[in-house]
Amino acid sequence: MKKLNIGIVGLGRLGKEYAKNLTYLVPNANLIAACSIRKEELDYVKETYNVPNLYTSYDQMLDQQKDMDAVVIVTSTDQHADAIIKALEAGYHVFCEKPLALNIEDCLRVEKITARHPDRITMLGFVRRFDSSYAEAKIKINEGLVGTPYLLRSQTIDKDTFAPFQIEFCTTGGGIFHDYNVHDIDLAHWYLGSRIEKVWALGGAYRFPEFGLAGDADNTAAMCELQNGTMAVLLASRISSFGHNTCTEIFATEGNLKIGDPPVKNMLQISDKHGIRREGMETFFDRFQHAFLIQIQSFVDHVLENKQPELTMHNATNATLVATALTKSFKEKKPVTIADLIS
Amino acid sequence: MKKLNIGIVGLGRLGKEYAKNLTYLVPNANLIAACSIRKEELDYVKETYNVPNLYTSYDQMLDQQKDMDAVVIVTSTDQHADAIIKALEAGYHVFCEKPLALNIEDCLRVEKITARHPDRITMLGFVRRFDSSYAEAKIKINEGLVGTPYLLRSQTIDKDTFAPFQIEFCTTGGGIFHDYNVHDIDLAHWYLGSRIEKVWALGGAYRFPEFGLAGDADNTAAMCELQNGTMAVLLASRISSFGHNTCTEIFATEGNLKIGDPPVKNMLQISDKHGIRREGMETFFDRFQHAFLIQIQSFVDHVLENKQPELTMHNATNATLVATALTKSFKEKKPVTIADLIS
Amino acid sequence: MKKLNIGIVGLGRLGKEYAKNLTYLVPNANLIAACSIRKEELDYVKETYNVPNLYTSYDQMLDQQKDMDAVVIVTSTDQHADAIIKALEAGYHVFCEKPLALNIEDCLRVEKITARHPDRITMLGFVRRFDSSYAEAKIKINEGLVGTPYLLRSQTIDKDTFAPFQIEFCTTGGGIFHDYNVHDIDLAHWYLGSRIEKVWALGGAYRFPEFGLAGDADNTAAMCELQNGTMAVLLASRISSFGHNTCTEIFATEGNLKIGDPPVKNMLQISDKHGIRREGMETFFDRFQHAFLIQIQSFVDHVLENKQPELTMHNATNATLVATALTKSFKEKKPVTIADLIS
Amino acid sequence: MKKLNIGIVGLGRLGKEYAKNLTYLVPNANLIAACSIRKEELDYVKETYNVPNLYTSYDQMLDQQKDMDAVVIVTSTDQHADAIIKALEAGYHVFCEKPLALNIEDCLRVEKITARHPDRITMLGFVRRFDSSYAEAKIKINEGLVGTPYLLRSQTIDKDTFAPFQIEFCTTGGGIFHDYNVHDIDLAHWYLGSRIEKVWALGGAYRFPEFGLAGDADNTAAMCELQNGTMAVLLASRISSFGHNTCTEIFATEGNLKIGDPPVKNMLQISDKHGIRREGMETFFDRFQHAFLIQIQSFVDHVLENKQPELTMHNATNATLVATALTKSFKEKKPVTIADLIS
Repeated sequence: MKKLNIGIVGLGRLGKEYAKNLTYLVPNANLIAACSIRKEELDYVKETYNVPNLYTSYDQMLDQQKDMDAVVIVTSTDQHADAIIKALEAGYHVFCEKPLALNIEDCLRVEKITARHPDRITMLGFVRRFDSSYAEAKIKINEGLVGTPYLLRSQTIDKDTFAPFQIEFCTTGGGIFHDYNVHDIDLAHWYLGSRIEKVWALGGAYRFPEFGLAGDADNTAAMCELQNGTMAVLLASRISSFGHNTCTEIFATEGNLKIGDPPVKNMLQISDKHGIRREGMETFFDRFQHAFLIQIQSFVDHVLENKQPELTMHNATNATLVATALTKSFKEKKPVTIADLIS
Repeated sequence: MKKLNIGIVGLGRLGKEYAKNLTYLVPNANLIAACSIRKEELDYVKETYNVPNLYTSYDQMLDQQKDMDAVVIVTSTDQHADAIIKALEAGYHVFCEKPLALNIEDCLRVEKITARHPDRITMLGFVRRFDSSYAEAKIKINEGLVGTPYLLRSQTIDKDTFAPFQIEFCTTGGGIFHDYNVHDIDLAHWYLGSRIEKVWALGGAYRFPEFGLAGDADNTAAMCELQNGTMAVLLASRISSFGHNTCTEIFATEGNLKIGDPPVKNMLQISDKHGIRREGMETFFDRFQHAFLIQIQSFVDHVLENKQPELTMHNATNATLVATALTKSFKEKKPVTIADLIS
Repeated sequence: MKKLNIGIVGLGRLGKEYAKNLTYLVPNANLIAACSIRKEELDYVKETYNVPNLYTSYDQMLDQQKDMDAVVIVTSTDQHADAIIKALEAGYHVFCEKPLALNIEDCLRVEKITARHPDRITMLGFVRRFDSSYAEAKIKINEGLVGTPYLLRSQTIDKDTFAPFQIEFCTTGGGIFHDYNVHDIDLAHWYLGSRIEKVWALGGAYRFPEFGLAGDADNTAAMCELQNGTMAVLLASRISSFGHNTCTEIFATEGNLKIGDPPVKNMLQISDKHGIRREGMETFFDRFQHAFLIQIQSFVDHVLENKQPELTMHNATNATLVATALTKSFKEKKPVTIADLIS
Repeated sequence: MKKLNIGIVGLGRLGKEYAKNLTYLVPNANLIAACSIRKEELDYVKETYNVPNLYTSYDQMLDQQKDMDAVVIVTSTDQHADAIIKALEAGYHVFCEKPLALNIEDCLRVEKITARHPDRITMLGFVRRFDSSYAEAKIKINEGLVGTPYLLRSQTIDKDTFAPFQIEFCTTGGGIFHDYNVHDIDLAHWYLGSRIEKVWALGGAYRFPEFGLAGDADNTAAMCELQNGTMAVLLASRISSFGHNTCTEIFATEGNLKIGDPPVKNMLQISDKHGIRREGMETFFDRFQHAFLIQIQSFVDHVLENKQPELTMHNATNATLVATALTKSFKEKKPVTIADLIS
């Protein structure tokens, strides 16, 4: 079996999961190198996954690890663009976690460099596209089962227990629209077959005033108009009391598809004095753990088959554009047209 | 509009509901008389429903209320047979709550008298047949939607809060098989198109030892073989912690019909620290309130249209026969064949 | 029992249901008069409900029916305001179907006259408040079960089979925002404890171009900001392929309440080659039939107890204001502030 | 990391899955040998999983593969007992797919040999115990969440598309009770904390007469009494039209736990002209794929930690005993007491 030699950069919570997947669960991948500025993270992957080559400098890894075929980037979002560009220019295939960047300039820089390296496979990780239920919905739409979609309602909602921990993450993550709704934006583009062109966002710090002080929100609602006349309604929340609750509903002319509702943890129903009930999932990772694996497997397969993924850097730029517009709309308390951002 | 003049006997909890339905909700009925040995119950229906003629003697009502067309019997079960026979012999149409009787002799007495009065409409109240979901399941089966049914799983489960109150009712109600499973037995006969011929019942007083001391159970399970080779599994329980839980599942060669699950109170879903949940129904009456109305309306219509109901006294006898066999099987701890009860 | 003598005006589909409820199902009501310009509708209620006094002129009914206590108005919406005003000035209590009117001037006229007749009970029919699940949600909120609500998502969705029939109704009904979303608007005000002050509406004729030609839409989405900083997202659709689908979700700081989902017809689950499935409801009337009864019963009780309902004419005005703003936003393709409508 | 060297015997559909899991998904396992009498199966695992040592003789593998620590047995059931015994006597740890055997003699032979090798880890694969929902139910019971269990209802139901293929498998698999209900039997023992002592089984070939001709059934129902007075109701079916449908319900004194219902394929809800629906799972493997992995991982961990699993060979014998009693009861059409089988 042909195997892909991979180096990973970024070994936080999600980075460690990629390391685990690449070590054990992707048969045609070899995780041969890892990079982090945190010594304890390098120690962890050495001990746990036996990664042979460790780096504290990304440039050094790119330069010295000659047998490496591809780089997997799981750093903080503000470093995505530079990391992608450096990897491409050093000749590697690249997988990068979503979102592409927090501003349009970075996105366009990446697009430009990507265009210069058409023989390098470049993939951005919008993980929901790889979830079996989201993927099945796309298949049903393509088969014409429910007619033509005209409205998408999509929400990204995290459990409240994670909110306190995320307050300091507001800045590096770009706020709730870049961090949460960027997924829903990409789904709107994917399912509705068009691009969002006008948005209005509302929101507030309804439970944790700290998010307000940081210029962010713990809950938002946004409405979007797409170029083809379809519509999208996007919700985001950091304060669900019962669990992670990602849900997407697609309204189409001859039917309706709903994904992820109810957001239950497993197949156990409990009936007792609290009623007839199901327990919720703790985190987005409980919900999308399998999709993360399918996604990185897909990247490896695309490289080995020398095939670019369906989702392009330009798609990723568009998602960031809309997240930027939503952030601006929320802050300036008025509708924002995408075209005005790039003129 | 032609209206039916009705007298009611038995004014307990369920009797009062019949009185309300007949007074307000059945347009072509006049509740003109009521009978109870309890003075306070007569006072109640006089005040609440303005029933003009009140009796403490059933014989007197039958004898004196010359303008009465029909009698509705909601007494305790041990009085059903005599009450039906007296009414028929006095020339009235009869509706009687389920079950027909607690022993076969009473059933056969009623059948004999009924046969002598073919011009009198006689109806036994197996209320589930009138619930819209149960009725719809029968329609789907008749239409052939799911092929041929071969197995029925049916349960009658009450909330535990009503158990203490029912301990003294064990004797007059005939025990859990006559009181609870008689519905499920009738459904087995109705949906499977045959008669139960052999049964084995288990059970125990798992939570309220008092039911054991009274020779009854708070939970039972029974398996039944029908004459046409199909099967039925019947559960009964007095101790649900989350609400009334009547559920029936019909397994057929090309599909499956499930009625009543989950047994939710309304259309409100609550998601909070206890999970994603729905509240249960308190009582069988919350579940079947509308069916009770449809049922008594159906009786009135049948009389006014001079048409016998689908369910005959012989069907009711068969249900009591099986309940008797289940009781015997439970007490003697061995399978019982129905034929052995009537030989 | 003290009974209220009622006259009804408007005997279309919904008017007939009010007539039935008032005749049979509201014990303390007497339907003594009915008015319609359509002779065949008067014939119908005479034959079916035995209504003794029939009028083709509303003025005449108000003038001549001296024993009448209250008027129930179920006319087309454009006649609501005048009908209410005339009834109040003639000294009657008034119940009127929603919405109050299609423009603000009519609403304010009614408010002014209502204020002059504080001894007359005046009630507007926002029926969802009387549905047991919606009412239970309000109780849970008042009890503090889920903390403070900050976002309401609410939709009014009809089955596609009714769309063709409704095209000509666009004009008299005021369009989809006045006809459909006015319920959701009232719920937003009720549950969120504030008033909508700014809206943006999108929409289109995605399946029936005829609605577009009539200046209306078959689907809309709207986002609303309330005075207290909370948010509402409102959807409306005329083209559900599987049934009526009214659903409301309340996001609160410590929990979530969802009402009406899944919008199933009954308690029958069918499993066959099409999957595990439930049938949907045909019409809003299948969904709210019981609430319509509870609502008119409530009106009768309020009159007999001489108590004004919780929902005032001013609340009704506010709902019409927002529906007007949504219509304007949809037509002018930009956000609309409520204050700008009334200045 | 300490790793376990494993040889596998039996490379049918399920065997290949074990090979995949052991190759890729169990980090501390090395699949170093494989045995099958079918040349093409050996070719498959060599090519696909790069298994280095291949055998057509089980004895030879046991004899020659000196670096092997443990054997995983996925042969047909009639070979389980001998394969276990040989492996133990050759000094290997053993994992064997369920059921232990089709007759009691074989079970007792295994128990005897197992007792002689207490230092060898021996594990029987009752996979449901490793499913996260089944495991969570056990935890809830142990925590006392629902009080004391007194009734288990459990069913194993396969999709009808697999029935034709299984007709010839009837003999080697031991029939529907050994092949399907043996799981439910083990769950009854596990959750109810006791052993089944008396059974009555019914059944028939309701859709595929071929099963009847083979002395088997396509549907069965069975009722069981346990030594501690609790009850179990077991269903099995080969003819579900909508998908695999394994479901277990535990009735306890203060609550109810239901596992696996509804048996949906994923988190996609489709609403269209067929209603509001979810698609079902195709096979038991779609349902228990993850549990199979957890299970074999658990075996490897138990060996490396030198710890015997909770489920003993005696438990496995008890399950086979009950399956044998059910088969006898079904064939002889009468209740069977377990004690009578072993005296």
